Amino acid sequence: MCKAHPAHPGTSELVGRAIAGAVEACELPRGTFALLHGQSHRVGGSLVAQPAIRAVAFTGSFLGGKALVDAAARRAVPIPVFAEMGSINPIFVLPRRLARDATALAGQVAASVMLGVGQFCTSPGVVVMQRSSSLDAFLATLAKELGAAPEGTLLHAGIKSGYQRRLAELSAIDGVVALVPSAAVEGPCGARAALFAVDARTWLARPELRDEVFGPATLVVVCDDAAQMLELAHAHPGQLSATILGDDGDRALLGALAPILAGRTGRLLFAGMPTGVEVNDAIVHGGPWPATTDARSTSVGTRAILRFLRPVAWQDCPADLLPAELRDGGVPGLPRLVDGSRR
Amino acid sequence: MCKAHPAHPGTSELVGRAIAGAVEACELPRGTFALLHGQSHRVGGSLVAQPAIRAVAFTGSFLGGKALVDAAARRAVPIPVFAEMGSINPIFVLPRRLARDATALAGQVAASVMLGVGQFCTSPGVVVMQRSSSLDAFLATLAKELGAAPEGTLLHAGIKSGYQRRLAELSAIDGVVALVPSAAVEGPCGARAALFAVDARTWLARPELRDEVFGPATLVVVCDDAAQMLELAHAHPGQLSATILGDDGDRALLGALAPILAGRTGRLLFAGMPTGVEVNDAIVHGGPWPATTDARSTSVGTRAILRFLRPVAWQDCPADLLPAELRDGGVPGLPRLVDGSRR
Repeated sequence: MCKAHPAHPGTSELVGRAIAGAVEACELPRGTFALLHGQSHRVGGSLVAQPAIRAVAFTGSFLGGKALVDAAARRAVPIPVFAEMGSINPIFVLPRRLARDATALAGQVAASVMLGVGQFCTSPGVVVMQRSSSLDAFLATLAKELGAAPEGTLLHAGIKSGYQRRLAELSAIDGVVALVPSAAVEGPCGARAALFAVDARTWLARPELRDEVFGPATLVVVCDDAAQMLELAHAHPGQLSATILGDDGDRALLGALAPILAGRTGRLLFAGMPTGVEVNDAIVHGGPWPATTDARSTSVGTRAILRFLRPVAWQDCPADLLPAELRDGGVPGLPRLVDGSRR
Repeated sequence: MCKAHPAHPGTSELVGRAIAGAVEACELPRGTFALLHGQSHRVGGSLVAQPAIRAVAFTGSFLGGKALVDAAARRAVPIPVFAEMGSINPIFVLPRRLARDATALAGQVAASVMLGVGQFCTSPGVVVMQRSSSLDAFLATLAKELGAAPEGTLLHAGIKSGYQRRLAELSAIDGVVALVPSAAVEGPCGARAALFAVDARTWLARPELRDEVFGPATLVVVCDDAAQMLELAHAHPGQLSATILGDDGDRALLGALAPILAGRTGRLLFAGMPTGVEVNDAIVHGGPWPATTDARSTSVGTRAILRFLRPVAWQDCPADLLPAELRDGGVPGLPRLVDGSRR
């Protein structure tokens, strides 16, 4: 049962019909998939309260995810809620790497920030760097790229008003500099990119800077030295992704940052931009609270199905009653663990 | 960090010292394990509230487990609670199987009920059967065995008072027959076995009969026919174990009961008694609510460690910075999935 977002019922209907067609083509039982429309939050709340519902998956805001978790906990029989709620996806750029090609890197960051008008869950909301002449070149290029980026269309008007509110909040913080103040855009969903910079001390002192700005904005945090970069890494709450970009000469700092950030994220990148999410066996699109409500889960990739499974031991079961997966030769090619050996 | 139960601090201390010795022998970091004593529930509550604590595992009562879940949900950063809370572990004995050796079976059930003075989490609290002359023979033997079973010692006085309260509650229900009323025992922890019987209609009508009696007691539920056994299976809440004992002639009913009970338990047995729990790869000591707070977990066996792990993707990581488990040849013998193939 899928609850469609009321802001784009048409898109939901198109996708829902495609899934319904796949259910039929795969000869799965009718009713395997259903799409439910509704304006009110009460529709989703009622679904979560239904006794027949056994688990909930959700992508959206922190407040939406938290409300579902609370609703699930109030049930007579509580159920798991896998809510993926938001992330600032920090990119740590180390000094040698920055010095090598600050300009090209700024272009990549700008493209990642603008992807999907900044609405990817893995959009880089924070870029952490050390003060240097390369930083100045990076900021100049990033400001130029984001300032020149065309107007984009956000998914719905609520996202636009939230984006504008967060931009105003950031601008009002002492020490936060708007290098590209998002230009006003007409219409209910139009938005332009924004770029802010702040020094590490201020970022560390103002926890609200760790909250996501949903939309095409990013914040460059300027550190004095490596120690401050480490301090900043420690201060990050749970993230869907964290990226560390370093060259050979950055290896010591790279090695120090990696375990700190691995403890705070579901996916740690050492190249590229976090917005590149591939559906495969190795992806983890999840992470510690508040990125998700269940750090052991991923909502993308082959492991995503584990959210909806639970183990059952069939002890001394007659062979013909066993599920096919547990029978000798029942499902060819399925990996099995038999008496401690993988078969 | 392990919170010792205040009813047996000496045993906890002995086990705690053995674990501390193992930590040293394995050259794990000091502080890997710590044992904390305390009389009050506040000690456990304070532990759960500590920001450094990332997950909680608990074995005990439903109320204790639920209190920990609620405490964990109140944290600024919620954490998972794996509480294993209780189970009535039904045994369904099918007609042909019962007819074959009702007396021997009664002896096995009696031994299972008495194991650890009925304090095993998997103690069989309910035995479901159909009316027949074999049932009469079964009940006569079971009553004789449990009536003659020696007095046992419960773990603490609170368990004894809870046991006596539950026995009185059961005895007070119209239609519940005390075949072996637990004889009074002197001393704060002594207890004797109890045996009750009830017809399926009454059991279905009185949900309090689905609650655990913690101690050496069991309840035989008498059905009129196979349909009523199926109805009874459907009515069971989540269990740590469920057992179906059937012969070849019972195959149709066995096949009908198995999927119903598999949907309600972590471990489904087709032979033996549920109190036999082996630590291995295949065991699942868990199950749907209210048996546990997380049906995807097991608290016994090699999969138990998964409660305390979460996945992290190391994308494009330089080989020398990768955790050993992810490096080519890093941990010989460790199964790995590489480009979709198991190595």
